[in-house]
Amino acid sequence: MQLIGHYQQIISEYFATTSIEKDPVNLYQPIQYILSLGGKRMRPVLTLMTAEIFDTDCRKALPAAIAVEMFHNFSLVHDDIMDDAPLRRGNQTVHEKWNLNTAILSGDAMLILAYQYFEEYEPKIFRSLAKLFSKTALEVCEGQQWDVDFEQRDNVTIPEYLKMIEYKTAVLVAAAMKMGGIVAQTSVENCDLIYDFGLNLGIAFQLQDDYLDAFGNPETFGKQVGGDIIENKKTYLYLKALEQANESEREGLVHWFSVHPEDSTYKIAAVKDIFRNSGADAATKNAIEEYTYKAFATFEKLNVDTDKKLMLKNFGESLMQRKV
Amino acid sequence: MQLIGHYQQIISEYFATTSIEKDPVNLYQPIQYILSLGGKRMRPVLTLMTAEIFDTDCRKALPAAIAVEMFHNFSLVHDDIMDDAPLRRGNQTVHEKWNLNTAILSGDAMLILAYQYFEEYEPKIFRSLAKLFSKTALEVCEGQQWDVDFEQRDNVTIPEYLKMIEYKTAVLVAAAMKMGGIVAQTSVENCDLIYDFGLNLGIAFQLQDDYLDAFGNPETFGKQVGGDIIENKKTYLYLKALEQANESEREGLVHWFSVHPEDSTYKIAAVKDIFRNSGADAATKNAIEEYTYKAFATFEKLNVDTDKKLMLKNFGESLMQRKV
Repeated sequence: MQLIGHYQQIISEYFATTSIEKDPVNLYQPIQYILSLGGKRMRPVLTLMTAEIFDTDCRKALPAAIAVEMFHNFSLVHDDIMDDAPLRRGNQTVHEKWNLNTAILSGDAMLILAYQYFEEYEPKIFRSLAKLFSKTALEVCEGQQWDVDFEQRDNVTIPEYLKMIEYKTAVLVAAAMKMGGIVAQTSVENCDLIYDFGLNLGIAFQLQDDYLDAFGNPETFGKQVGGDIIENKKTYLYLKALEQANESEREGLVHWFSVHPEDSTYKIAAVKDIFRNSGADAATKNAIEEYTYKAFATFEKLNVDTDKKLMLKNFGESLMQRKV
Repeated sequence: MQLIGHYQQIISEYFATTSIEKDPVNLYQPIQYILSLGGKRMRPVLTLMTAEIFDTDCRKALPAAIAVEMFHNFSLVHDDIMDDAPLRRGNQTVHEKWNLNTAILSGDAMLILAYQYFEEYEPKIFRSLAKLFSKTALEVCEGQQWDVDFEQRDNVTIPEYLKMIEYKTAVLVAAAMKMGGIVAQTSVENCDLIYDFGLNLGIAFQLQDDYLDAFGNPETFGKQVGGDIIENKKTYLYLKALEQANESEREGLVHWFSVHPEDSTYKIAAVKDIFRNSGADAATKNAIEEYTYKAFATFEKLNVDTDKKLMLKNFGESLMQRKV
């Protein structure tokens, strides 16, 4: 999408021209490092785009957008510690490149820095942004905790799983968009509608991530196809398969999700068969569509010009059409 | 001090009657736990006291005071990980009682919760409080990083050390007081003066902590006397001794600070001798007095009644007269 490229460029330019490095370097260098690894910058792009949806120069929303990206990167640094992940975007994670203590402390500083970007705004907007940000950041922590808790549990329900991905992933997408609306000083109703749009699109996006992890094209999918299956991750596909499979399939699935074979080729194939035969793949596709339509349904009440709605719809569709 | 007991009670009552525990319990229980361990609650007490210094009901400052205490406890949880500390206030640290990941994530949540308490205030006060809080929190992170960095360095200067304790300890004392002034909506000049009072008193307090760690009364001092010496910690006493000692004493000191004898009795005695003979003990006492006087010097310009100044002076003196 041409459009998104424009916003991505504004964000990239900001990070390319603004150095965060200062004394003590051991605190700020890791922050500069993780931010320089890039990524799609989807969340701050959404903040900029939403400001323009509500007829405001997107550059006015840049500090809020940077705050969102800073928070997202904070959560990556701390989550990577918790997941013991060696790589992030193909590069060493902060705790691997430096050490545990640096990753904790530099992460803390990023969370505080995120709040500081809101200081660019006058008191009323500052308060609205910071309040939404705190609520969202706390929900992201709660989502992360649930994700950790679910690893130890055998009785996770689908509503619980949906709540978890809503908190861990979707609320930040929703808040990123609402911040664009707050900066643009649009109506409270518009702010709430664009939040709902982002929330449902965010859930659809995460469900699609679950789906593509198993059924994506290995040649274009960014991550290892079958990664969730290898790690016995209880995704939507897994929970739906448990619900819909016959007894022997269910037993097979539970067995496969209790072992870590050295060569996972056969395990991945067997689990994918169960996902297909139980109809979990179709059910997941359905859920993705449902949440996407729910996102688009907000257009009925959203008070903006038709061309702006079309822009949002195009964005949503392009996001959901990725077959990678 | 009778006075302080009154404020301490307000803080204790708040924590005793307000439960933070909710789902997911694995996130919120550790927060409830660390807050329940108590401590002197010195920082929030200062926020309440300062509001009354500026003729405002101290209960109006309670949310800001709780934010300060929440932040302080956040920093304890994360610092305890970094220091690999097993105990905090005589109880297990969070990462010991639960695990590393819980201590990271619950700590993150506490930092966010701290900001949320400011939402009790209207936009202009909210913005002032949150702005001061972010600046202070970032400085505390920087101070912690310097402290970590200094462990690896042999050429730490006294001005560098003073800057480190200012950031790691004193700025939060200063900010706690200034927040009382902000809530009371006193003049900017008063706010800055009370900040300076807190800052200098905070530095004096930390220097006294260094002093008492070596020369405190083992029977009343809360921590193990000589703890800093055992850990080869480069405190003000150590840096001043390096500066003032003769060559043979300096060599002795450097030697002692390079070893970890199993029985530290003789090491502690030898180092304390060097601290005394070099005049480092007297120099530290001098510095404590200097910073205390610097704190009291703000009274000249502080625009409050004499009885309020006396209250602050009594508080400062009681703090500095502890011989424990």
